[in-house]
Amino acid sequence: MEKTKNIIVIGGDGFCGWPTALHLSELGHNITIVDNLSRREIDEKMGADSLTPIASMEDRLAAWTECTGKTIDFENIDVARDFDRLTELLASVRPDTVIHFGEQRAAPYSMKGITEKRYTVDNNISATHNLLAAVTELGIDPHIVHLGTMGVYGYDGDGLEIPEGYLRVFIPGENKQIFQRDILYPTNPGSVYHMTKSMDQLLFQFYAKNDLLRITDLHQGIVWGTQTEETKRDERLINRFDYDGDYGTVLNRFLMQAVVGHPLTVHGTGGQTRAFIHIKDTVKCIALAVENPPQKTGKVAILNQMTETHTVRHLAQLIARNTGAEVAMVDNPRNEAAENDLRVSNETFLDLGLEPTTLAFGLMEETQEIAAKYADRCIMDMIPCVSTWTDNQQPGVVPPKAA
Amino acid sequence: MEKTKNIIVIGGDGFCGWPTALHLSELGHNITIVDNLSRREIDEKMGADSLTPIASMEDRLAAWTECTGKTIDFENIDVARDFDRLTELLASVRPDTVIHFGEQRAAPYSMKGITEKRYTVDNNISATHNLLAAVTELGIDPHIVHLGTMGVYGYDGDGLEIPEGYLRVFIPGENKQIFQRDILYPTNPGSVYHMTKSMDQLLFQFYAKNDLLRITDLHQGIVWGTQTEETKRDERLINRFDYDGDYGTVLNRFLMQAVVGHPLTVHGTGGQTRAFIHIKDTVKCIALAVENPPQKTGKVAILNQMTETHTVRHLAQLIARNTGAEVAMVDNPRNEAAENDLRVSNETFLDLGLEPTTLAFGLMEETQEIAAKYADRCIMDMIPCVSTWTDNQQPGVVPPKAA
Repeated sequence: MEKTKNIIVIGGDGFCGWPTALHLSELGHNITIVDNLSRREIDEKMGADSLTPIASMEDRLAAWTECTGKTIDFENIDVARDFDRLTELLASVRPDTVIHFGEQRAAPYSMKGITEKRYTVDNNISATHNLLAAVTELGIDPHIVHLGTMGVYGYDGDGLEIPEGYLRVFIPGENKQIFQRDILYPTNPGSVYHMTKSMDQLLFQFYAKNDLLRITDLHQGIVWGTQTEETKRDERLINRFDYDGDYGTVLNRFLMQAVVGHPLTVHGTGGQTRAFIHIKDTVKCIALAVENPPQKTGKVAILNQMTETHTVRHLAQLIARNTGAEVAMVDNPRNEAAENDLRVSNETFLDLGLEPTTLAFGLMEETQEIAAKYADRCIMDMIPCVSTWTDNQQPGVVPPKAA
Repeated sequence: MEKTKNIIVIGGDGFCGWPTALHLSELGHNITIVDNLSRREIDEKMGADSLTPIASMEDRLAAWTECTGKTIDFENIDVARDFDRLTELLASVRPDTVIHFGEQRAAPYSMKGITEKRYTVDNNISATHNLLAAVTELGIDPHIVHLGTMGVYGYDGDGLEIPEGYLRVFIPGENKQIFQRDILYPTNPGSVYHMTKSMDQLLFQFYAKNDLLRITDLHQGIVWGTQTEETKRDERLINRFDYDGDYGTVLNRFLMQAVVGHPLTVHGTGGQTRAFIHIKDTVKCIALAVENPPQKTGKVAILNQMTETHTVRHLAQLIARNTGAEVAMVDNPRNEAAENDLRVSNETFLDLGLEPTTLAFGLMEETQEIAAKYADRCIMDMIPCVSTWTDNQQPGVVPPKAA
């Protein structure tokens, strides 16, 4: 590590934020978690819960200090609504880095209904803009690391590899003139949630250009796995395990279904190709991004944070083969292409030394163990995805067997 | 006119909204204005005011009925904050068309300070999203006509003509493969205000694709002129005339400066090329858009609403020549290219029959008369642009003359 940094982790109580905060603390940085604990509140409203029992923030932080002798500060601030407290904190911490996970992050939740759509837009846009506006107003110069999503690109791939950075395009004009532009990759978000991350890109583009803010935007794949080296040290440090239809990402949901004897519910043909990354690699990538801030170039540093691609069908087959679970093809509640190709460049993190934890069944065992250990906490009704993308769709429940 | 439509005009108290509402009423449509009168409130806060005396909404509407026998309904609703009342109104009016002007619309105001930046983002994004979400939730199918801005394109033109609709781009891949995409024109907004209109584009793209909403997005040039056929009929119907550094668009500001004997303040070299349209053509274009809704194609209809381009310097020279005013070159408070080319396609409205009112000094006379008539209401201190785009800039005040 080059030097100790003051780092604020906005959204540091969440599935990616918590293990990131611990990992950066372990590396010797001074960490302040900012979170309004909204993820816990959403659980309560939905009657869902992490399969793993999540300790209170106070107990989490006490356990971390017990295990390591290090302390992590915590401020309960709603960054989308309490601009003044956010500004005061930034002025007092003077962070070298602000990591911004502070957004509603589930696509199905964002499509659940009108309240969730509006919450996702208002919360995510105001949170991101408040951070950028506060930093500009204070005249401080932290490196801002934002967790974006591969979903901004959309999944109608025709074989074009999704690059890192800006996309160079060519536009034919009159008189055989060809114009060249380096642009943000044209977004094609598939949900309100993904749309907000696309809108974030425009916020970053503007503040990087107008105020020369240094911003890294990480377009992350679907995260699998639960524990990192740091969260394993004490049960009070355990990370979230979401298996419900709204917040559970596909692989964890399949593993949970296998453990409780529920068929693995594959939407449509399962031919959707998606990018994946293990939670252990998430925290490593963010540490690498923190150590490598961009220069004040007027442009955003855009990296792809993923390590491999798979079809959903292939994931289901892999788990079914190893667990004996059944696979159930159900109607797709999402408005998305049935099958797609996906090619993504992830050279930057590989060049910086990332050694990916790729998907092999052995590596899933740990997650499977967690699923088995806490299986009695599972609420079966929460597993199916019931948020439909448009009115003329049916939720993705298992159809009744033919008589 | 094909048939009488029920039309809601959100932002119908503003500079473009008010004459649009009257014009569509004159054409025989049933008009409901929705406005929270925020533009009047901003005037009060800034200590500015329209040069022309604006009647209260009640007096405006009473005058319209007196002059024409027609009635226009009015609902004081903040569409960004009062979602429930917006939804109730949409459910009750069941509009054929919703025209959405309901956004903070001044670039300098949006860059004035932290409060104005945050207000512009939170207000504009929530207003647009609330409308789209409400329409989707109710399952109604109005044609939504939105006033965008030419400013989303940015002004770093290299000679490429800005098209209407989506932009076809080509991307070279491996093995000499060329990929083709039809994308939203890559935005390069120059202010927080323009950024919000760029973000609106992503909202429209998503809801057109996912929910098949029919949306027309009109990228409008800088509006000049004050009166339309309808606003001229009675002094209580008079339109706004903004001449202050925040809300006054460049041509009206120059005319006001000429009338009161203030030098015409040109930012930088005045080599900025911009697109223009007369307010009379604004209302005609919107009427044409209302009569020509797009099909449910999953794409947004994107049109350019402008009739000519000029450099700021040329405008100043034109007015100086005809009025004897001096021209003062001042530092540019904006972060923008000093000189730029601008070519724009506006074929759709020409094809639909628009006969542009172009800029010739004779046509400015009416505006000049208004400026002269109400010159005693002018607050001289409000004329210079004092919002700076970044910290290292000086406001655009007239430099003291050399001794």
